[in-house]
Amino acid sequence: MPSPAPSRPLRILISNDDGIDSPGIRALADALRSIGHVDVVAPNTQQSAVGHALTVALPLRATEFERNGESFGWAVSGTPADSVKLAVKQLLPEPPDIVISGINHGRNAAVSLIYSGTVSAATEGTLLGIPSIAISLDDFSNDADFTYAAKVAAWIVPRIAARGLPRGVLINVNVPALPESEIRGIRVAPQGESYWDDHYEVRNDPMGRPYYWLKGHNVLLGPDGCDDKLITEGYVTITPVHYKLTDEPTLEAMRGWDLESDGGDLSSTAGSMQAGPMPE
Amino acid sequence: MPSPAPSRPLRILISNDDGIDSPGIRALADALRSIGHVDVVAPNTQQSAVGHALTVALPLRATEFERNGESFGWAVSGTPADSVKLAVKQLLPEPPDIVISGINHGRNAAVSLIYSGTVSAATEGTLLGIPSIAISLDDFSNDADFTYAAKVAAWIVPRIAARGLPRGVLINVNVPALPESEIRGIRVAPQGESYWDDHYEVRNDPMGRPYYWLKGHNVLLGPDGCDDKLITEGYVTITPVHYKLTDEPTLEAMRGWDLESDGGDLSSTAGSMQAGPMPE
Repeated sequence: MPSPAPSRPLRILISNDDGIDSPGIRALADALRSIGHVDVVAPNTQQSAVGHALTVALPLRATEFERNGESFGWAVSGTPADSVKLAVKQLLPEPPDIVISGINHGRNAAVSLIYSGTVSAATEGTLLGIPSIAISLDDFSNDADFTYAAKVAAWIVPRIAARGLPRGVLINVNVPALPESEIRGIRVAPQGESYWDDHYEVRNDPMGRPYYWLKGHNVLLGPDGCDDKLITEGYVTITPVHYKLTDEPTLEAMRGWDLESDGGDLSSTAGSMQAGPMPE
Repeated sequence: MPSPAPSRPLRILISNDDGIDSPGIRALADALRSIGHVDVVAPNTQQSAVGHALTVALPLRATEFERNGESFGWAVSGTPADSVKLAVKQLLPEPPDIVISGINHGRNAAVSLIYSGTVSAATEGTLLGIPSIAISLDDFSNDADFTYAAKVAAWIVPRIAARGLPRGVLINVNVPALPESEIRGIRVAPQGESYWDDHYEVRNDPMGRPYYWLKGHNVLLGPDGCDDKLITEGYVTITPVHYKLTDEPTLEAMRGWDLESDGGDLSSTAGSMQAGPMPE
């Protein structure tokens, strides 16, 4: 992924999953306008936990979104991935040098990467060949203070833009909900193994019919030095994320599972039903 | 992931992303009823390309779905991942031994894994600690013939149930749209690198306002022996998929990028702006 020519301002595309009207994207845009040309293209409504959804069955709309009487960006009737793809392929006169998604309300670490709409906007940027960053603040509350997280964004964007990133890799950044003086430091960290311990709360509607509402809390597993642990300890974390999804050890093991055969006849002996050794 | 006790029927949970009323899930359920106890819990509407979305801002509904006057399963007002999670955590009296998602209309290979709702149902099963399979037929048409793909499902389900799978790994199966006599064979194969070459078709509504519709075609990249190539050549492919998303080579490289520091002050020298060597 090439770096931009230094002679013109850095072109930065901002998106998110909390919606174009969220405080986090406003803080991000305000912080980045001082270091480059900013375009904001983001969902017109809150889109958390949408994963890497792309709208194919419906058309998309893009409406100019104003703030304080000035144009702030484009509001898209779709997901974070839709917003980035539509921006790059249709709305912007030229592709951005870098994509940054956020600032999300709430951390995106460990298993949450799979569900995260914030990360999926950066994933789409990466798939389009553009260096991309997701950034999240570890605070779900409505009055979250994005000041320091916005500083981190303005610090890392020109660095990643200058370096570039390997093809297919994005950067996932998490910032603790602490004042600058209490931040312990910045760490490059792998994805952790924490998960959500959740269940459905069953309620009945006024007609007596049940409905189910997901409720859960994060179980902090680590190991030490992983994103989730370090965020909790007060560190900003930077995690490179890829999408090479083949599990190589299992692939090797499965070649010995007698599953492969020639021709379409499944009644042959192909595919032992015996349990056998399993990769770690 | 433990194998079931052999003394009772295999408990199979079926879901999909095409919706509970689709021909593919019907063919799958019909084929698997002969080898175990089948529960069907699937979205009540088509949910393609939803990625790994989970509904958190709204409650879910589950309605019994009938076919030919008999109960076929539960229709859920959510995504594939919602359906599997709600089934396992709420609707079923005990967890299934195995989850299978499909049979999808259209292949799910290469980069499409990131967007696939079919795969995301299996991912949710895997996250819940249950051996899980996604299965897709390489045919988007409404009159697709699921006969052979259903046979493949009935062949692989007891084998994976007997073997179990490593923690965090699911199996992604793709079946060519060919009669059994023309199938070239079965192969364990890594995820390929094909991608979608797409753009937005711009149209105007009756009021003259633009809307954008995504349009694209798959670009077959390979390399040889990868899922997308082999499917096109007429092979059934079996791909083990994981979600360890840390890019280890970039993680190692980034430790040398001078990004790490102690304390929250970003004005120090942390984070060189120089371009440098990049991992492959």
